[in-house]
Amino acid sequence: MVLGSIAVFVGAPRVGVAAEIDQLPSWNAGPAKQSIVEFVGKVTKEGTPEFVPMAERIAVFDMKTLSVGGEQALLKLVLTTHAGMTTGEFAELVKDWLATARNPKTKRPYTEMVFQPMIELLAYMRANGFKTYIVSGGGVEFMRVFSEQVYGVPPEQVIGSTGKTKLEVHDGEPVIVRLPQIALINDKDGKPPAINQYIGRRPIAAFGNSDGDFQMLEWTTAGAGPRFALYVHHDDAGREWAYDRDSSIGRFSRGLDEAAKRGWIVVSMKNDWKKVFSFESK
Amino acid sequence: MVLGSIAVFVGAPRVGVAAEIDQLPSWNAGPAKQSIVEFVGKVTKEGTPEFVPMAERIAVFDMKTLSVGGEQALLKLVLTTHAGMTTGEFAELVKDWLATARNPKTKRPYTEMVFQPMIELLAYMRANGFKTYIVSGGGVEFMRVFSEQVYGVPPEQVIGSTGKTKLEVHDGEPVIVRLPQIALINDKDGKPPAINQYIGRRPIAAFGNSDGDFQMLEWTTAGAGPRFALYVHHDDAGREWAYDRDSSIGRFSRGLDEAAKRGWIVVSMKNDWKKVFSFESK
Repeated sequence: MVLGSIAVFVGAPRVGVAAEIDQLPSWNAGPAKQSIVEFVGKVTKEGTPEFVPMAERIAVFDMKTLSVGGEQALLKLVLTTHAGMTTGEFAELVKDWLATARNPKTKRPYTEMVFQPMIELLAYMRANGFKTYIVSGGGVEFMRVFSEQVYGVPPEQVIGSTGKTKLEVHDGEPVIVRLPQIALINDKDGKPPAINQYIGRRPIAAFGNSDGDFQMLEWTTAGAGPRFALYVHHDDAGREWAYDRDSSIGRFSRGLDEAAKRGWIVVSMKNDWKKVFSFESK
Repeated sequence: MVLGSIAVFVGAPRVGVAAEIDQLPSWNAGPAKQSIVEFVGKVTKEGTPEFVPMAERIAVFDMKTLSVGGEQALLKLVLTTHAGMTTGEFAELVKDWLATARNPKTKRPYTEMVFQPMIELLAYMRANGFKTYIVSGGGVEFMRVFSEQVYGVPPEQVIGSTGKTKLEVHDGEPVIVRLPQIALINDKDGKPPAINQYIGRRPIAAFGNSDGDFQMLEWTTAGAGPRFALYVHHDDAGREWAYDRDSSIGRFSRGLDEAAKRGWIVVSMKNDWKKVFSFESK
């Protein structure tokens, strides 16, 4: 069985030589990859009871599910720090930080520490009419600076923790200024209300990596019609790092226990991913 | 000069008979219509300094700029009423209200009291790669019920006043429940921060009808590159109703004074619109 593939015609259309292109080349063949392709195939097949109109094909991805991430402390801090700074000035600061900061293990910029299989998955779902959202506990003004370039997700499709802001006039120009107060913490049981507030519809597919995503996956799959939920399990100490039940960051215990009985897919980074990062040699 | 038009080929392409289709037929020829068409033409012309990439073509429309609207009191009330109700139950209530409520003057449903020229304008801008948003003081859970059907604007592109919500589990099912607290009042100087919070970019075009939209138009036009701002002036007592400086609802005074010197367009419903509602006989 060919997974994650489309048939394209090579040469003049009338010659009609069909070639198969694997759109998820960094995924090993197996049940996880198969379940993704089957779900996408099912909801995009017109004239069937499981067909979902394009406008309702909303997929939500937690951000730590997509990449190793920056320093956790920074992601949280930036929410209320830099009060009095305009949003434009803050975006410049983030750009500078991203240009200089390096992951301590790989010495690479954080914008390269993204999981190649998830990049392929985002593109694959968009190619099938899905609108892909990032829904993360990180500060939204931080993530939006690079979401489009790194993940192909425009700023208006990034939902994150949010600080309060205020309109002021500086030197005759209206600017938006950061306040030292939190408007929204986007984690755990805060995620479904935040998704509802921003999108106004329930997603049909949700992707997470920790117990902080549990409610998002639970609420997504409780809707009517075809639903899909997937957990990425960080079990690859060699290529990334391994953590789950006892981790203080990204604890993954309840989700791991309940996934099987709820029919949610658990992806083993070690077994299901041929490649973790695009810069890997093999 | 032909305004708001595209050239299409009638018959076989090689015959090449060009016909002009006016995409804004309910607009009278004049400076308002001309300014819209010139702006859209300018920002969509590749290879020029004023070209704007499609991802940045964000246009925001106040909702009372689009239609006569429901009862103002209801639009405000629904924000914090019905606490304890789930969002799904509340949407059903709104559907029932819309199906039965009638405008006292025309005896028509509120979903028919929309300004035909604005419907054409929304469609025209979308056809030119704009992403159209409704940004209104009305309750967001109210507007999203009919925004797609009536305006072609999907729920995730509706920004409104917002009540707080909470995730609960009812009979084993996760549901989102309304709380009797306000999260966001989307009016006046609250509009630019709300747009920034939801979209993460500054729009390039803004459409309003009252002083409550002033800051939205001011912030939109203060950005770099081509910008467009337009006010609809309710000066047609016969076909709609006339109000501006002394009105308690939709007061329009500062905007009227400052529009000319800021280069913002003021549309006279009486003079610039051939038709106000689609159900008009002529």
